[in-house]
Amino acid sequence: MDRETSHPLVMRQAEGRDGAIRQPRQTWLIDHWIAGLLAAEFAGTPLNFALWDGSEYGEGSGEERICVHIGDRPALYRFVYNPEVQFGDLYSLGRIDVEGDLVLAVESAYAALDQPPGRWYWLRRVVQLIRKGPSLRRSKHNIHHHYDIGNDFYQLWLDRVALQYTCAYYRHIDASLEEAQLAKLDHVCRKLCLQPADTVVEAGGGWGGFAIHMAKRFGVRIDSYNISHEQIVYARDWAEREGVADKVTFIEEDYRKIAGKYDVFVSIGMLEHVGPGNYRALGEVINRCLKPDGRGLIHSIGRDRPALLNAWIRRRIFPGAHPPTLGEMAPIFEPSGLTVLDVENLKPHYAQTLKHWLARFEANQDTVRKMFDEPFVRAWRLYLAGSTAAFTVGQLQLYQVLFARSGRQPLPMTRDYIYMQSN
Amino acid sequence: MDRETSHPLVMRQAEGRDGAIRQPRQTWLIDHWIAGLLAAEFAGTPLNFALWDGSEYGEGSGEERICVHIGDRPALYRFVYNPEVQFGDLYSLGRIDVEGDLVLAVESAYAALDQPPGRWYWLRRVVQLIRKGPSLRRSKHNIHHHYDIGNDFYQLWLDRVALQYTCAYYRHIDASLEEAQLAKLDHVCRKLCLQPADTVVEAGGGWGGFAIHMAKRFGVRIDSYNISHEQIVYARDWAEREGVADKVTFIEEDYRKIAGKYDVFVSIGMLEHVGPGNYRALGEVINRCLKPDGRGLIHSIGRDRPALLNAWIRRRIFPGAHPPTLGEMAPIFEPSGLTVLDVENLKPHYAQTLKHWLARFEANQDTVRKMFDEPFVRAWRLYLAGSTAAFTVGQLQLYQVLFARSGRQPLPMTRDYIYMQSN
Repeated sequence: MDRETSHPLVMRQAEGRDGAIRQPRQTWLIDHWIAGLLAAEFAGTPLNFALWDGSEYGEGSGEERICVHIGDRPALYRFVYNPEVQFGDLYSLGRIDVEGDLVLAVESAYAALDQPPGRWYWLRRVVQLIRKGPSLRRSKHNIHHHYDIGNDFYQLWLDRVALQYTCAYYRHIDASLEEAQLAKLDHVCRKLCLQPADTVVEAGGGWGGFAIHMAKRFGVRIDSYNISHEQIVYARDWAEREGVADKVTFIEEDYRKIAGKYDVFVSIGMLEHVGPGNYRALGEVINRCLKPDGRGLIHSIGRDRPALLNAWIRRRIFPGAHPPTLGEMAPIFEPSGLTVLDVENLKPHYAQTLKHWLARFEANQDTVRKMFDEPFVRAWRLYLAGSTAAFTVGQLQLYQVLFARSGRQPLPMTRDYIYMQSN
Repeated sequence: MDRETSHPLVMRQAEGRDGAIRQPRQTWLIDHWIAGLLAAEFAGTPLNFALWDGSEYGEGSGEERICVHIGDRPALYRFVYNPEVQFGDLYSLGRIDVEGDLVLAVESAYAALDQPPGRWYWLRRVVQLIRKGPSLRRSKHNIHHHYDIGNDFYQLWLDRVALQYTCAYYRHIDASLEEAQLAKLDHVCRKLCLQPADTVVEAGGGWGGFAIHMAKRFGVRIDSYNISHEQIVYARDWAEREGVADKVTFIEEDYRKIAGKYDVFVSIGMLEHVGPGNYRALGEVINRCLKPDGRGLIHSIGRDRPALLNAWIRRRIFPGAHPPTLGEMAPIFEPSGLTVLDVENLKPHYAQTLKHWLARFEANQDTVRKMFDEPFVRAWRLYLAGSTAAFTVGQLQLYQVLFARSGRQPLPMTRDYIYMQSN
């Protein structure tokens, strides 16, 4: 089907990028051939593809239709050249846009990738043969990394009670983000059977929300390690305001520097950044710091098949991140005399968390745009929407792994203790 | 400390073995040196070691004392030569005996093995250097393997309601074996969210107790695969008696022959016999037979460090068995597009199950002795007691792994559904 005009947002972005006004240019036969291949690849999904002259390919129609608008010829060829990275970059710059629900668009893409390969696949194979080295170095888009951003940005869309940039726990699907984040912290504490006399070491404490929660709710003593100076400063100030500065010590050090003996080891959302090469060292740290009847919990994004994170997210959003499979996590536990007691996969909870984050992000997009720029807003929108889809229909998982020393049984026999108190 | 007489049971066994009466013989200096090394190795535990002349080494005293009686010099040297296998064989033959609680004795041995190596360890290292090839072939003890034994033997000491030769689930520590085995079956069904319209395939169905339970309780249709002819015959007859023969089909075939599409895949206590080399094939079978929104559960003995099963148990009780670590299980799930949703480690439940089995076994030992012989009774006593210790303080685990297809969510978001109905 043909559409009379190209999508206004694409035009706006194409104009906005370098100030020059670009009129829709003529399309060539090969452009249409590629768009047709793309549409065929996603046959059976609501995904359509439209070129800059308005011509559209695909089976999607009616309210379910989602249209990927490609704004100019170089964008189309960059996309063909390296879709995994370029889609994100071109979307961020507005040279590709998505008309319709962005989460549903990425979910549809995942569904299509499960199908047998079509001609698009073979085109990609040929392109891969001629592609040389990392094309990424040449990209100089103005997209900030996580670690350049600062606390204010995250406070715009994270929960307001515990500042958790990790998966929440939705005891009910209609729980608020704040309720679900507190429920996550309590879920972890319950699993660990946290008692007031316990000493706790936290690896990767973020802005301190969990440590402060444990101190206030359970009266436990916590040493919380973090290498982010900015977060440590924030966390110390927060603990002071909450009156628990005597209970929580925030230590600006790597997890490998953890010293002392503790009843509980806990780490929420750090393992993603540890890297598989350091898993054994992490296990040794836990082995060294845990008392004989100690117990621990690691909460981490994972995968159900070994793979690198999506190339664009790895490059633009989370440099160096690696979500492991359960099998890849084994070197943390098996060589260090630790026994895995319980693994819970919370992936639907992360999808729900991301939906809440995305909604708040969108509600604050004007503020974000003022803090940064339009490509930043679009990059983060795509990151949050794409991650949602990766947790609903993709390979991303959220594992909570509860463990203790081999041959010890510091926790009750059944998991009733986790669920009996929870209502 | 010295004891005036050698332990009567040792003497009785030494007599009973070949009919000849053996008087306690003189001991040599080297016998005492070895016994002293052994006792030093187990310093800090209640374990003592006594030679056939009654001399005893070790710190154990009072009610807590456990004494390992070594009945003759060849037994001592065979034990030094290959303790892992020979202890079991010599105990079975009564040439080594344990005075005191057998479970506690093995638990003490495990605890001692965690200590830094002493002179005993170095003696063992020297012996290992001179030991050639498998000494096992030469052993011809009259100890039957699991698979030569028949149904009557197991019925003497397994539960009377579901004939489960696998770990039970103790919702309360004072539950009976029958209650705990039914609770296990229901726990598995609850985790799988079993619904009356579901079709189920069971891999390794034993005597049919679980399949019959599912048919009676949930009205589901089950295909149950098993390669043991004797068990299949028993199971068909049992299903007939219970009036569910139309619901359950017992198929005398290997799990790799599973055909058709099912809502649920379940396997309790088969993985131990599959062998790591076949895990990927098992994953492919599951991938082939599971409907898109299907779910599955594997219940298996495992370990927290990769190792072979105790050499004696592997040789005498469970030929070919291998309890995997969670890391070793990964090839079942990761290459086959399956997502692990929940792992529960039930190891204290297996210790409790084994205690119940051991008590019933002891209560029926006269019947067992008539069916077989004294070495058989002693071998099984050691196996049940040693396994108990392996689950309390050793490396054995019991993993229940719940899974579904990648990118699907056929089960509720929280595990409340497992626990809400259970009281």
